[in-house]
Amino acid sequence: MEKIPILRMGKFLLVTIQVDLYDRLALNLEADLVQMVKRTNARGVLIDISAVSIVDSFMGRIIGNIASMSKILDAQTVVVGMQPAVAITLIELGLPLKGVFTALDVERGMNLLKDKLGPDEEEMEPEDQDDAGSTE
Amino acid sequence: MEKIPILRMGKFLLVTIQVDLYDRLALNLEADLVQMVKRTNARGVLIDISAVSIVDSFMGRIIGNIASMSKILDAQTVVVGMQPAVAITLIELGLPLKGVFTALDVERGMNLLKDKLGPDEEEMEPEDQDDAGSTE
Repeated sequence: MEKIPILRMGKFLLVTIQVDLYDRLALNLEADLVQMVKRTNARGVLIDISAVSIVDSFMGRIIGNIASMSKILDAQTVVVGMQPAVAITLIELGLPLKGVFTALDVERGMNLLKDKLGPDEEEMEPEDQDDAGSTE
Repeated sequence: MEKIPILRMGKFLLVTIQVDLYDRLALNLEADLVQMVKRTNARGVLIDISAVSIVDSFMGRIIGNIASMSKILDAQTVVVGMQPAVAITLIELGLPLKGVFTALDVERGMNLLKDKLGPDEEEMEPEDQDDAGSTE
């Protein structure tokens, strides 16, 4: 399985990291994600890392990259489900994930994104429904 | 990473299969999922297999097991994102996934579950908010 699936939930995208992000997989994820943001008019990206128990500087950088890329496409990134040990490691590595929002779990992350979008945009549905959930 | 994370989305649980389900991982997933259904009062389980390109009879059986277990706990299972090749293989293996609902993507799967629950339950929020997204 060479790709990490990106799931569409309304106007948000959800990515669950379950495997170690080696170089190519991480670059693929970055590329897929920005294309998916564009294609689905997504306003937010949720990255669930609850299965990640070990983090290194590479992964910290990838998350930062995704957040920056999404931001210039006008989508906010929220990292959810971080394990306490991962938070400790990130700080010890000197990677405080600046510009990335975090939340305890997917539901809270989604509420955070909804709050950020405000009530007007909350009802807006993206137009393009065809590519949802696709990973090709 | 020894566990597949189970994400809570309102009254549904979402599982994304990204890795090959070998014996122990699959049994862990079954056990985690039924406990999570109980703990969160979940009414539906969404299993996203869009990253799965190869399926065997073991995996087909695991999905069937999860659906049956959830059903007797009063939660419906919907398998979403199945690739065409996987559908072909399942039928050729003689595993038509009886008793399992399927949908093209997570959004449609969620709408299917909402339709099944009906308008009364749709507003009902589960009481226990503490364990959401946890994978400990």
